[in-house]
Amino acid sequence: MPEPLTLALDAMGGDHAPEMVVKGADIAVERHPGLKIQLYGREPEIQRFLKKAKRLRQSVEIVHTDDVVPGDMKPSVALRKGRQSSMRLAINAVSDGRADAIVSAGNTGALMAMSKFVLRSMPGIDRPAIASYFPSQRGEIVMLDLGANVDCNADNLVQFALMGDVMARSVLGIIDPTVGLLNVGEEEQKGSETLRTAAERLRSGKVPVDFYGFVEGDDLAKGTVDVIVSDGFSGNIALKTAEGTSRLIAEFLKDSFKASLMAKLGYLFARPAIKRLRRRMDPRRYNGAVLVGLNGISVKSHGGTDAIGFANAIGVAVDLCRHGFIDRIGDELAKMNPAALAAKDPATGPLTG
Amino acid sequence: MPEPLTLALDAMGGDHAPEMVVKGADIAVERHPGLKIQLYGREPEIQRFLKKAKRLRQSVEIVHTDDVVPGDMKPSVALRKGRQSSMRLAINAVSDGRADAIVSAGNTGALMAMSKFVLRSMPGIDRPAIASYFPSQRGEIVMLDLGANVDCNADNLVQFALMGDVMARSVLGIIDPTVGLLNVGEEEQKGSETLRTAAERLRSGKVPVDFYGFVEGDDLAKGTVDVIVSDGFSGNIALKTAEGTSRLIAEFLKDSFKASLMAKLGYLFARPAIKRLRRRMDPRRYNGAVLVGLNGISVKSHGGTDAIGFANAIGVAVDLCRHGFIDRIGDELAKMNPAALAAKDPATGPLTG
Repeated sequence: MPEPLTLALDAMGGDHAPEMVVKGADIAVERHPGLKIQLYGREPEIQRFLKKAKRLRQSVEIVHTDDVVPGDMKPSVALRKGRQSSMRLAINAVSDGRADAIVSAGNTGALMAMSKFVLRSMPGIDRPAIASYFPSQRGEIVMLDLGANVDCNADNLVQFALMGDVMARSVLGIIDPTVGLLNVGEEEQKGSETLRTAAERLRSGKVPVDFYGFVEGDDLAKGTVDVIVSDGFSGNIALKTAEGTSRLIAEFLKDSFKASLMAKLGYLFARPAIKRLRRRMDPRRYNGAVLVGLNGISVKSHGGTDAIGFANAIGVAVDLCRHGFIDRIGDELAKMNPAALAAKDPATGPLTG
Repeated sequence: MPEPLTLALDAMGGDHAPEMVVKGADIAVERHPGLKIQLYGREPEIQRFLKKAKRLRQSVEIVHTDDVVPGDMKPSVALRKGRQSSMRLAINAVSDGRADAIVSAGNTGALMAMSKFVLRSMPGIDRPAIASYFPSQRGEIVMLDLGANVDCNADNLVQFALMGDVMARSVLGIIDPTVGLLNVGEEEQKGSETLRTAAERLRSGKVPVDFYGFVEGDDLAKGTVDVIVSDGFSGNIALKTAEGTSRLIAEFLKDSFKASLMAKLGYLFARPAIKRLRRRMDPRRYNGAVLVGLNGISVKSHGGTDAIGFANAIGVAVDLCRHGFIDRIGDELAKMNPAALAAKDPATGPLTG
């Protein structure tokens, strides 16, 4: 029987908050028996929706605060002015040990800035990254960084590789995940100096990951590797392009079935198959991006998602906690460079100061 | 009545050459009456397929050469050793004025290197780029660079914007195309220094394009702007990710219709709609990437395409010729900086030397 988990939720983050957060949490407590929920935000608004959330009511604690980080607030401003915001208090709960993870559908930049500031980078990790799961022809894969760091050096990329490897092992349960570096060709001489240096280090055998080599944009959907590593700029372009293409094809498919009376009739018969496809491509299934590399689990949900999507983001946080994600990254880092880590620990360990 | 056009085709480039080149040219001469074709390559092999190409036989000239650039040859080696190759001789025909454009489905790197070497950059253009058309929810758009330049400075991006604008005007017939710069957010402070400088220059009013601002990966499929400009690294990632995602969804769709007997039955009724979708997403429709910024039109076809795809790549070359693409870019450059161009002309104009 696993220890009961407690998640801190930013009840006010997202386009349809707090309703979608409360409903999402209600779905999540049914999916994950024993899960405890803390809701941070405006209590009267939360209570309104909590009335209908029978399962959630039995395992919830509300921490009231009036303050909310607006969706368009600059991260630096949010950091200064949002100390009493629902987002910030939820993050604090993780650093204080009162919660195991935080989930928010609010302002991405603010969540990143606050999570970094409060939870700090793990010793051995220079910069946290945003990671997520994606569908591919060979099952789910992990991709990072999706936008936390526009510029990355070779060290950053190597550290991303290691964290992606742990994500694939722990949550996806892949025994020996392969890792690829996103590039514009597979040949060793392709791409920037940074990419070539990172590849050399990953190939050296000193990093405990199974390095496949360079991969290209279409390898994301092919599932050529289990983990794709890139800087935050390329990763974000790939993520958004994939999302946009999916929506375009869904649009085209809908048009096709409206093109004629015959096509409309065809739709009636094809509906189960189309529904199956829609379920498989449902972006809510892949909701929940993780800020990896911090001393605590911080999960970002899409701002526009609904209760089902938010419940899935909660599920990502639950999985990472249950699989001891943070400790496992620490173990892998220790394997890579035990001496340097030991020397670095006291200086950069934010929880020891 | 337009002047008759002559296209130089690398008959030996591509996975299914020379058969697909000959058949593709046969389709193209029917689509574009008056079109004249030069086929560069091994005459006996070409003749074998020409027997069945009735329409093409009346307007074709074969220029025999035994030498072919292998698909895996490094561009620098191809440049040195491929002087008598089918690809090189076809490019030479454009620089000699014997043909109006060259089309090849061969080695991309070699085609780029040889085209640059033989045709040279236009005065006012520092680096040529690879451009292509894409489907979007609002019709076709132009995107460049798709992989010619991994690193770009702000000047390069501004020049790409101008060339993309001319492509959208001339071939797509868009009266006032909007141009966006690919970034990881729409806010002015997002992205690299290079992107911000390029955006500033495009916003200054000194470049004759209608600059929309920054766009993101999903704006490609949304069709938010008519032209998307990026460096060759991001552009290639976006292109390949979009291709991969399309194939993944096609795969998922096929699976859905095989999932049950009912679904299989549904397929029979839905077939016209599915076919319509498949036609609309057919990658052959968008075959034919253009090397823009050279003193001549050089078009790259996908290596794995068939005759229909190759005929479409020929169509891209025909369109660019008919619309006086090269002259129009020259005119736009002149508008931007007439003094600098006049001063630069004698030094960099490769055709005047």
